[in-house]
Amino acid sequence: MKEKNSIKHVTKDDKVLKSLLAYARKEAKRFEEEFFQLLRFPSISAETEHALDMQKTAEFTAKLLQEAGLKNAKVMPWKKHPVVLADSATEAGKEAAGKKKTSLLFYGHYDVQPAGDEALWKTPAFSPQLRKGRVYARGANDNKGQYLMHIKAFECFQKVMGGLPFPLKVIIEGEEEIGSPNLLSFVKKHKKKLAADVLLLSDTEMLSKNTPSLTYGLRGIVYEEVEVETGGRDWHSGMYGGVVVNAAEVLVLAFSRLKMADGRVGIPGFYDDVQAPSSKEISLMRSLIQGDASLKKEIYAHGFFYESNIYKKKIGRKGLMAKSKASEKESLFYEKTTTEPLLNLSGIEGGYTGAGSKTVITAKARMKIGIRLVANQDPAKITKLFRAYLRQVIEEIAPKGVKVSFHAAMGGGRPVLAKLDSPAILAASRALEEVYGRPVINIRSGGSIPIVAELIDCFKLTPVLMGFGLKEDAIHSPNESFWLKDFHRGIESSIRFLYYLSKKPLEKKPLEKN
Amino acid sequence: MKEKNSIKHVTKDDKVLKSLLAYARKEAKRFEEEFFQLLRFPSISAETEHALDMQKTAEFTAKLLQEAGLKNAKVMPWKKHPVVLADSATEAGKEAAGKKKTSLLFYGHYDVQPAGDEALWKTPAFSPQLRKGRVYARGANDNKGQYLMHIKAFECFQKVMGGLPFPLKVIIEGEEEIGSPNLLSFVKKHKKKLAADVLLLSDTEMLSKNTPSLTYGLRGIVYEEVEVETGGRDWHSGMYGGVVVNAAEVLVLAFSRLKMADGRVGIPGFYDDVQAPSSKEISLMRSLIQGDASLKKEIYAHGFFYESNIYKKKIGRKGLMAKSKASEKESLFYEKTTTEPLLNLSGIEGGYTGAGSKTVITAKARMKIGIRLVANQDPAKITKLFRAYLRQVIEEIAPKGVKVSFHAAMGGGRPVLAKLDSPAILAASRALEEVYGRPVINIRSGGSIPIVAELIDCFKLTPVLMGFGLKEDAIHSPNESFWLKDFHRGIESSIRFLYYLSKKPLEKKPLEKN
Repeated sequence: MKEKNSIKHVTKDDKVLKSLLAYARKEAKRFEEEFFQLLRFPSISAETEHALDMQKTAEFTAKLLQEAGLKNAKVMPWKKHPVVLADSATEAGKEAAGKKKTSLLFYGHYDVQPAGDEALWKTPAFSPQLRKGRVYARGANDNKGQYLMHIKAFECFQKVMGGLPFPLKVIIEGEEEIGSPNLLSFVKKHKKKLAADVLLLSDTEMLSKNTPSLTYGLRGIVYEEVEVETGGRDWHSGMYGGVVVNAAEVLVLAFSRLKMADGRVGIPGFYDDVQAPSSKEISLMRSLIQGDASLKKEIYAHGFFYESNIYKKKIGRKGLMAKSKASEKESLFYEKTTTEPLLNLSGIEGGYTGAGSKTVITAKARMKIGIRLVANQDPAKITKLFRAYLRQVIEEIAPKGVKVSFHAAMGGGRPVLAKLDSPAILAASRALEEVYGRPVINIRSGGSIPIVAELIDCFKLTPVLMGFGLKEDAIHSPNESFWLKDFHRGIESSIRFLYYLSKKPLEKKPLEKN
Repeated sequence: MKEKNSIKHVTKDDKVLKSLLAYARKEAKRFEEEFFQLLRFPSISAETEHALDMQKTAEFTAKLLQEAGLKNAKVMPWKKHPVVLADSATEAGKEAAGKKKTSLLFYGHYDVQPAGDEALWKTPAFSPQLRKGRVYARGANDNKGQYLMHIKAFECFQKVMGGLPFPLKVIIEGEEEIGSPNLLSFVKKHKKKLAADVLLLSDTEMLSKNTPSLTYGLRGIVYEEVEVETGGRDWHSGMYGGVVVNAAEVLVLAFSRLKMADGRVGIPGFYDDVQAPSSKEISLMRSLIQGDASLKKEIYAHGFFYESNIYKKKIGRKGLMAKSKASEKESLFYEKTTTEPLLNLSGIEGGYTGAGSKTVITAKARMKIGIRLVANQDPAKITKLFRAYLRQVIEEIAPKGVKVSFHAAMGGGRPVLAKLDSPAILAASRALEEVYGRPVINIRSGGSIPIVAELIDCFKLTPVLMGFGLKEDAIHSPNESFWLKDFHRGIESSIRFLYYLSKKPLEKKPLEKN
């Protein structure tokens, strides 16, 4: 099926869908202008001098929502940056009618990363420019292009049909780039208003150009800072070495019991709740990359972890892919990064690391441990196990007076795993296939989006993570961009998704947490 | 024996010794003035703006040596700072006569540490002041007070006896505080002139106030920087975690095989050449400190290494001191820090250690390892074993492409262990006992003085490390000071030592390296 003229895929009876898409095509130029307008606001959440820009961006976003039919879209002041809140079903009647339909919660964020080193940008970060089909500006992908496309889809429904045929709730926050510290409390405050069955957001990547992807899994996260103190001052290693306790060594030796050289996490109970992927998932994942050689080059890795001797010894030949022609065309990359938990030493520091030599035994050292979780590991439980185990190890290897302290450097985030046969996901898959003219690839992500996990947890949502990002978009880097073609294909995908969603039976609540 | 009036201890026949001491007493005031003069030079080797002060200090020192009878004392330009060189036996006749006598090489250094934070000094670092019996100035202990005392002793011999009755060589360098990088090459260039049997220097500590001490052992040192590189850039731990190799983890896990939690070094062959201390040495060392409680407080240690559960399990009750009243009056401090080798993690750094959280997998990390050696470990051999073992470990736990590099951050230093029954050491012991009125304590140091090891190696010297420093002198810190009483007792100890040394038989060359 050609992906060029997607109108061909509309079934004859779907006159409504045809009209919706026609409207989108007609307004395409204006949509692009609004996109550029949105990009001009330097809505940098991390920098206080942009507080006013944040307010203006939120107001602009609320206006777009109002024009898209969400008349009550409002900019709500909150603890730091305002939140844009809207919902389509406030009148009693509508609410009653909407009760039997699948309701949708749409999430986006209007704040962006700082520009970083301005000198590295070809055109200014907040002066959007179209070059070779790409829109260059901070936020073009992350997240303005990817939330605006859905607002435009809402608008199409408003103008063509008088609105969406099911309840829609919208939350567009301004603190995602700084960790969304205040979002959960806001959501809990407006729980009734925001309650829904399906979560829609576009803040993930496609597998590759023109490859429609649905992300159905995210890893969770726990991030701990550990500090060890063995005394009130550092010591000369000649005079005191052999007697005083080196804080950096305590951490290092403790880490070696947290994570074995073959990768296994040593915390008792760590793997208890891990849900293994199906063999079908494994097969698909292995086929997604043709061997590791070019991947290693692309990401500048000298080697991959599972190539080490100690890992191979542990797994044995049967555990890795069979040494056959097939393995040159396959890769363990996806299953390792998305279906397995990971304990990672994000940072460690202790003692003297400057130029030359300083013969010191340090009394203080710290490390930062990032733990990626998979379904159904629980961040609170893992944090508890982690701390208890580490305390126990340190109690054994260090004398009694040594102090160890823990600090959660970020709130924990649950892993996410959606059911692929849910009506919402089937609607999204169909929409994407029709627009891109190819089967959608359902992928799991190795990354975490804590707010997604929190929303799912709060409302028992089915997540539809319909992302249009590409690696070349270079988010968080200079010269961020977004393919304008995908902006339009995103609008069309959203229209089709919303349309098919409205035709689906009521979304079943997942029986268990994802 | 009272230490107050040491003249009482001169034997009736030793009229010469009596005259030497009387001269010293008569000139005491002038000696103090010369001390203060010497202290006024800001001879900071680490700072280029003091190059002229370095020259002046060297010249002043050479002048003092000339006035002490070493007529050929000269300031020799060398690679960086000049070296003061002198010897008493250049004329052919003298040299012939001196051939049968024990010859002495005296070492000192005229350079000092920088002042550091001037605001923390009560009086300026280079304006010496006498307060409550202590001379406050940078270099008062380290090393000006402690080398001047010997020059004054030489002067006594010159003025009273016409010179020392055996050959004396003097080397006073200006780079000790910056690691003496050029001294060995200088020594090798002047090898013939500097060759001797006994090495005399005062750059160590006494056990405590009024406790005469001879340091007969020093630990050696090897200092390695290890860097691991697993890729050309860092990676996001969500997207790539589980596949790429974390350089900090490679180092950490490698370290855990270098040194076990119970303290044992894992390098095969590491302990092969270690010479165990005698039970007599052990008994003495254990008796030097009355239990660990106040020592821990004094050095701000929360606990001592050998108090950990894992260590106790390894050693068992028989390895540690018996749990009896005796153990509260003893300490393992000295035997641990002076008779055992140590592998120490001086510093480690990798990944993100700033505020907050950054979910990164680092591609580069490094650690600095300081290894203290005891007799008869060899630094070159240990370095070789260390590197080979670490390479082997990393080859096992990391994939093939991972790079590891080693760099010796300082030249290795051999350990030093002198024979306590050597004539020079017996002469020094007697001298100190007579001055302080108490038996001398022979102690080993946990620290290293690489130049001592190098000189000993070069000339097969017996080291006489006659130190008068005290912890309260606060060397390398603000408000460094030196007890003026010990300056004078040092002069007297030196006189007596030189006198008794001249009466001893020719120093036997040690059969093996120390």
